[in-house]
Amino acid sequence: MNPRTDATFPAIDVRAPLLVTLGDACGIGPEIVVRAAVSGELDDAVVLGDVQVLRRAAAACGVAPVVAVLDHPSQRASLPAGVLAVCVPSGLPPGLAALPWGAIRAEAGAAAARCIEAAVAWVREGAGRAIVTAPIHKEALSAAGVAYPGHTEMLQALAATAGAPPPPVRMMLANDELRVVLVTIHVSLRRAIDALTVEGIAETIAITDRALRRFGLDAPRIAVAGLNPHAGEGGLFGDEEIRLVSPAIARARGAGIDARGPFAPDTVFMRARDAQGHAGEFDAVVAMTHDHGLIPVKYLGVAEGVNVTLGLPFVRTSPDHGTAFDIAGRGLADPSSLRAALRMARRLAGG
Amino acid sequence: MNPRTDATFPAIDVRAPLLVTLGDACGIGPEIVVRAAVSGELDDAVVLGDVQVLRRAAAACGVAPVVAVLDHPSQRASLPAGVLAVCVPSGLPPGLAALPWGAIRAEAGAAAARCIEAAVAWVREGAGRAIVTAPIHKEALSAAGVAYPGHTEMLQALAATAGAPPPPVRMMLANDELRVVLVTIHVSLRRAIDALTVEGIAETIAITDRALRRFGLDAPRIAVAGLNPHAGEGGLFGDEEIRLVSPAIARARGAGIDARGPFAPDTVFMRARDAQGHAGEFDAVVAMTHDHGLIPVKYLGVAEGVNVTLGLPFVRTSPDHGTAFDIAGRGLADPSSLRAALRMARRLAGG
Repeated sequence: MNPRTDATFPAIDVRAPLLVTLGDACGIGPEIVVRAAVSGELDDAVVLGDVQVLRRAAAACGVAPVVAVLDHPSQRASLPAGVLAVCVPSGLPPGLAALPWGAIRAEAGAAAARCIEAAVAWVREGAGRAIVTAPIHKEALSAAGVAYPGHTEMLQALAATAGAPPPPVRMMLANDELRVVLVTIHVSLRRAIDALTVEGIAETIAITDRALRRFGLDAPRIAVAGLNPHAGEGGLFGDEEIRLVSPAIARARGAGIDARGPFAPDTVFMRARDAQGHAGEFDAVVAMTHDHGLIPVKYLGVAEGVNVTLGLPFVRTSPDHGTAFDIAGRGLADPSSLRAALRMARRLAGG
Repeated sequence: MNPRTDATFPAIDVRAPLLVTLGDACGIGPEIVVRAAVSGELDDAVVLGDVQVLRRAAAACGVAPVVAVLDHPSQRASLPAGVLAVCVPSGLPPGLAALPWGAIRAEAGAAAARCIEAAVAWVREGAGRAIVTAPIHKEALSAAGVAYPGHTEMLQALAATAGAPPPPVRMMLANDELRVVLVTIHVSLRRAIDALTVEGIAETIAITDRALRRFGLDAPRIAVAGLNPHAGEGGLFGDEEIRLVSPAIARARGAGIDARGPFAPDTVFMRARDAQGHAGEFDAVVAMTHDHGLIPVKYLGVAEGVNVTLGLPFVRTSPDHGTAFDIAGRGLADPSSLRAALRMARRLAGG
């Protein structure tokens, strides 16, 4: 998590720009990036992607930002506010801006992957202070022969030190009032239950604690949700709390982490909710399953949700939505979640 | 669900009062009932319980309502507004008002059970138009030798026609913006998955449809949530959607029910949420597990949540909280959820 302790990634240079990958050229990524740029939210950022794809998106949105193509992200500092700064990764396929909107295309998948690789390479050089990724499409990646199903796995592999296993990562979803970190993600509910271990839960708690400290909290209060109704009601409705969750919490507490629980899943998120007139009891909730965690984060609407990959040796955030092929190219895409991802990246990476 | 078609329960008489059971004498039930009474919300209701327990609760709340003890609920109509009308079930143990607040006591459990039995008996006579139950305590019931773990099972048994199996029931949780009906409830998550069947899911959808029609909706839009992340992503993350949920939806649709799905659990509740500036896409969501359904209903706070037992031959609602032994007797209990339960009972039972 902490680049300061990873041998192959430098300390965060708060003067370096945020690096924004453009995502799938056929989806809404380019449009939300252009919208953020014209409202002045990319003045400390460099976009990695194809210039013509950006211009097409600008036209779709009815805007015409000044685009400057840079050789190196550090040149961003010389540009005035309002200019959309772009670094074009080598090896992008030609003709990206001629691909149909809303289509699964191998070229778009390949280009999206190249932008991500370039972003990690720049961060490894100290030329970017965090990565913010616009949405990619799983099937386009697959059509391009990319070996990873999504951003998280790809970034995890790119972050690995040569010869070492990739770092353990976890998905955090956050909005203005709730932060959730998931122990298990994209597996069936049955397999998620089978996959729970004391080690995996304790590691999730530890990763969460480190991330929140980095976020600026001195003594993060971490709630751990149970798996079963009423957190098992003392073993009556399942024993995972007794066998797995409670020992993991004990281990975390032994390491000085303020982890509490296991709490009943149906009320712990409400208790953690931090909103006007409702002070949250916890700074984050560790959830055992994808949907226990994501149902409450998304309940009030996804526009302000941010996805943060915890455990990487650099900061990475992304909007909490996909490529939205159904509305791509129509100038309708809402950049709110990208804006929230940019704010979160700044907060986590400083500057 | 429909008393009009059950041989042993009469049609709802909209002139009959609501019947409010007092709940566990050592919990907050009596206090929320008194608070509702003094704010005029029991003017169309009769409380079933012990008079001294009510007086003790009134003293705890610092109020002194006029209490009238009736022989029959129909006498409610002769009383002016503001009077707290009580019918005392036969067979209540003596000394209930001397029991310590916040304690598990067999006498309190026995009394709570007697009030519920009396309520069903009055409804069977046509003397009550719906039952609203204040909270009981599972362990107090058990200490009293009551064979049921809670309201739902007890009401189900009391509703059974002699010689026939008890009617299938489902738990609905509702607040002002969301209605959720649960396929499985108080079992471990593993067993909940094992317990899913096409029949059980289809029956839940049918019970939900009937309840919403009774609620006044002509063509209820019922969303069915999947079990797995992304509703299984086409079988990649689990096959329960393919094997169980989709066939159940097809069966319901074949019976003329507007059931749709299976939808990804993490966004279906957000889509169903009906709030200012956010028109809900569905009138209710059928959830496969206790916590998939209850996390979103409770997320914004439990004060306005209502529990409705669907499938009984009469209307039964209750507040969505327990006996709160930790604050009982201190005049602190919030009657909001009871108020919402009373409103829901009126809406479901007419009048």
